[in-house]
Amino acid sequence: MSQAKVGLTGVGRTGRQWNRLQENRAARLERARNVLGGALAGKVVDASQVVALMHEVIEPGDRVCLEGNNQKQADFLGKALARLDPARVHDLHLLLSVLSLPEHLDVFENGIGARLDFSFSGPQAARLARLAASGKLNIGAIHTYLELFGRYFVDLTPRVALVAAEAADRDGNLYTGPNTEDTPAIVEATAFKGGIVIAQVNRVVDTLPRVDIPADWVEFVVPSPTPYYIEPLFTRDPAQISEIQVLMAMMAIKGIYAEYGVQRLNHGIGFDTAAIELILPTYAADLGLKGKIASYWALNPHPALIPAIEAGFVESVHSFGSELGMENYIRARPDVFFCGPDGSMRSNRAFSQAAGHYACDMFIGSTLQIDLQGNSSTATTGRISGFGGAPNMGSDARGRRHVSPAWLKAGQQARTGRDTVPRGQKLVVQIVETFREHMAPAFVEELDAWKLGEQAGMAIPPVMIYGDDVTHILTEEGIANLLLCRTGEEREQAIRAVAGYTPVGMARDKRMVENLRDRGIVQRPEDLGIDKRLATRDLLAAKNMKDLVRASGGLYEPPKRFRNW
Amino acid sequence: MSQAKVGLTGVGRTGRQWNRLQENRAARLERARNVLGGALAGKVVDASQVVALMHEVIEPGDRVCLEGNNQKQADFLGKALARLDPARVHDLHLLLSVLSLPEHLDVFENGIGARLDFSFSGPQAARLARLAASGKLNIGAIHTYLELFGRYFVDLTPRVALVAAEAADRDGNLYTGPNTEDTPAIVEATAFKGGIVIAQVNRVVDTLPRVDIPADWVEFVVPSPTPYYIEPLFTRDPAQISEIQVLMAMMAIKGIYAEYGVQRLNHGIGFDTAAIELILPTYAADLGLKGKIASYWALNPHPALIPAIEAGFVESVHSFGSELGMENYIRARPDVFFCGPDGSMRSNRAFSQAAGHYACDMFIGSTLQIDLQGNSSTATTGRISGFGGAPNMGSDARGRRHVSPAWLKAGQQARTGRDTVPRGQKLVVQIVETFREHMAPAFVEELDAWKLGEQAGMAIPPVMIYGDDVTHILTEEGIANLLLCRTGEEREQAIRAVAGYTPVGMARDKRMVENLRDRGIVQRPEDLGIDKRLATRDLLAAKNMKDLVRASGGLYEPPKRFRNW
Repeated sequence: MSQAKVGLTGVGRTGRQWNRLQENRAARLERARNVLGGALAGKVVDASQVVALMHEVIEPGDRVCLEGNNQKQADFLGKALARLDPARVHDLHLLLSVLSLPEHLDVFENGIGARLDFSFSGPQAARLARLAASGKLNIGAIHTYLELFGRYFVDLTPRVALVAAEAADRDGNLYTGPNTEDTPAIVEATAFKGGIVIAQVNRVVDTLPRVDIPADWVEFVVPSPTPYYIEPLFTRDPAQISEIQVLMAMMAIKGIYAEYGVQRLNHGIGFDTAAIELILPTYAADLGLKGKIASYWALNPHPALIPAIEAGFVESVHSFGSELGMENYIRARPDVFFCGPDGSMRSNRAFSQAAGHYACDMFIGSTLQIDLQGNSSTATTGRISGFGGAPNMGSDARGRRHVSPAWLKAGQQARTGRDTVPRGQKLVVQIVETFREHMAPAFVEELDAWKLGEQAGMAIPPVMIYGDDVTHILTEEGIANLLLCRTGEEREQAIRAVAGYTPVGMARDKRMVENLRDRGIVQRPEDLGIDKRLATRDLLAAKNMKDLVRASGGLYEPPKRFRNW
Repeated sequence: MSQAKVGLTGVGRTGRQWNRLQENRAARLERARNVLGGALAGKVVDASQVVALMHEVIEPGDRVCLEGNNQKQADFLGKALARLDPARVHDLHLLLSVLSLPEHLDVFENGIGARLDFSFSGPQAARLARLAASGKLNIGAIHTYLELFGRYFVDLTPRVALVAAEAADRDGNLYTGPNTEDTPAIVEATAFKGGIVIAQVNRVVDTLPRVDIPADWVEFVVPSPTPYYIEPLFTRDPAQISEIQVLMAMMAIKGIYAEYGVQRLNHGIGFDTAAIELILPTYAADLGLKGKIASYWALNPHPALIPAIEAGFVESVHSFGSELGMENYIRARPDVFFCGPDGSMRSNRAFSQAAGHYACDMFIGSTLQIDLQGNSSTATTGRISGFGGAPNMGSDARGRRHVSPAWLKAGQQARTGRDTVPRGQKLVVQIVETFREHMAPAFVEELDAWKLGEQAGMAIPPVMIYGDDVTHILTEEGIANLLLCRTGEEREQAIRAVAGYTPVGMARDKRMVENLRDRGIVQRPEDLGIDKRLATRDLLAAKNMKDLVRASGGLYEPPKRFRNW
């Protein structure tokens, strides 16, 4: 392939120069080649030279995208970034999907980074809040993933991207395989706006299983001394699922999945939704729902979905990323997962989020707090955590125009008796126990998000899912169908009705709640014809990790920490 | 690269076979190889054999994605598809972004296709409606582009994709260059779910300028006898811009762009928005707005934007597709457009739509009809046309979480005095003259969409942009700011106020309109401090095509039909 033929451009008739990015890029590459000398073989850079490379190709004030995904991490490049000389490289504007490793924040602590735009920061949320408060780090904004990718093509285009791949060939083609995740979005935005892409790879090989990213888009490849870090975020041990969660899963299936005929969906992370996945082949099958619900998924390869897949419940799963240990199982189920001609999966967060937004009829997930309008958030004081994909999947896609029975029914419930054009609506379900860990109530008069927003100087409080997008709240007390509420007061009482013994629940108006129950707005398990005594762990198609392995025919290989048998 | 190593999978422990797609794919490829024999050199198939190839790799009932984009068309493959033997290949489910060529409908007329899912059908809308009415074609649904791509990864995954590229090398790598458009989304969904990708290419070369689609993802390459068809959809001759359009453009800039500080935006197609583009370097510059508005764009390379680019108004443009004649200009302005290391642009409709949805503060575009709730549609009876990207860009992105001044101000206007969590809102502006061609009023009591929906048996009327997403309606009479309306009645009167001499406008309540005007909800040109007498064509930075060419320093080369000097 031909390379970097710049020079046709230059100064235009208005006297302005129009190829500054390309010229500056060429200058950086030139410096890098001079410094690296023999440590550079084609595009392959010796790992020992990574800091030297970065000193030449990163300039102060650059927007640098460091690939920190929900799972895969460019950790070797991240550590190198934190080791740069702040006298040479400083005031960087860091772009990360997920800020989850200590080195991500070391970059700021060490005076190299100054500004941050991101989507999720789970384990580093408390330290991030402290750094932001200290003034060492200026937060641009919190995003949902697809929103951040969108900005890469508008006003946050990276100057340098530091990404991770499984392997490269000597030309610089990359194989990202099952853990492709965010790499295509990051690399495309960078490579096509005069930026520079550096990839850490686990190994350099003669022949790749397949090409995921063309060599033309990649400038340097650095074989990393250790494989990139990856986190099995979506593995839930069925042994930890409680009978209350089984009960909630039964209500979800009977009261929502079956009621609306939900065929296309996304599940959030957590034991609540894992319980649903695990009773598809038992409870849902007994209700005759196979082929009628939960056939098409935008979902990471959750191990808890294995029994449902084996039972023939699942037609298709497209994934944001992969899940450690699921590789061989996925490879053996190409009718279900998206696998290449080489046999291994390709994930893609951008496309899966687009699918979650526009091609799914339901999002169901957990939260930490819900207020009386139904606004929910996982933000708590002292922690700036972000929401990842939840705002995108947990919001009504108002641009959607294709119909499905589930979407039409939800829209009809929301609009009957109102003077609006008929249209559909996405089902957005919040599933929570009324009390979470340490007896903290999930229902509150005011979200902690308000306080956090003030503390962190945010223009608006960090709400994860807005109340007017939530269609159902499901707790062990029952289901509140917010679509059917016609006033703010009805909505508030419907929420109180399922809030159990929390202060919010105790303050309910009992007569009004009974009225809502008569109208089907509030449904108790018995209203759904669910016998609570049957809500036992016996319904789980796999009761522990070993059962999941067995269900997979030995193909699923859980990471060590989950091997508890 | 290694190829198609299937066979590890096969029958699982539950007795179900899990690699049907891959096995069936292998069988199709085997048949094709047998039939093609010497006409197949590696992946390259002789053009004379394209029907023979399709007879072997397409099976009855297949979902077939035929690349019909907004601009680029896989027309050679489309014509071949229409020539297949309906006794062998029939009941196809066709997937197309844009159904715009006669052969697209010949496929149905000839009994090969049976079902259609699409986004836009512009020039074929009337014939499409007739075919649908005759029962020869069953419409699945109308989509917005990103929604259709999303479904490719969920429940509408193509079995075979017929795409178009500029060039291929002998391995099957594709160069799609400036007109990349929908190709990456289509190919990824197909190639990674056991499907087969066939690309028509203008030429086969030894070395590509760059690789846009890796060879591993492509099965067959067919050099087409003629280059793929491409339509210059976004070119508007400034000579046709009226002084009324100049006046409306002035109102847009002063009353909306400046008022909200709109920095990131998308423009619809049309003379109304072309007028805005053309007065940026004159009127907007005089108002001191350079650098303060319209810096970052998700936009096809509109020739009308050349003067604003040359004046330094524009920081960045990411494009859905390219525009004929703009290639050299784009190549010479890589600081603005997304160009690869090879110097030429890469467009990408999926990413640009994601950017339009999540990273833009405003969408402004025209429509054919607006009703009293502000619902708008380009659907008219007897024509099933679809809406392309408008529903996606012209809807509030409720999953958005990052703030900008424009977004915050719009959200504040909409929510002040209402008991909701503060948040922002996208500006969605409908710009129309009160009467369109043939004196048809743009404002109506009821959209034609209702009648069309009934005629075509649609579950909901085909509304392009819902009234509750529209924030401003701009006509030659003034601007109606719907964000500030607090009741349905206020909204209706604000719309009537700018509807001029249409029946809808004549029926306005004059006293109420004056009240709305006092409150700034309705603004006449004089309320904005705009002297109508200054609204002349002299404000246009280019008054005709030749001016545009001159402004580009001779780099822009308009297609022949626009060369009218």
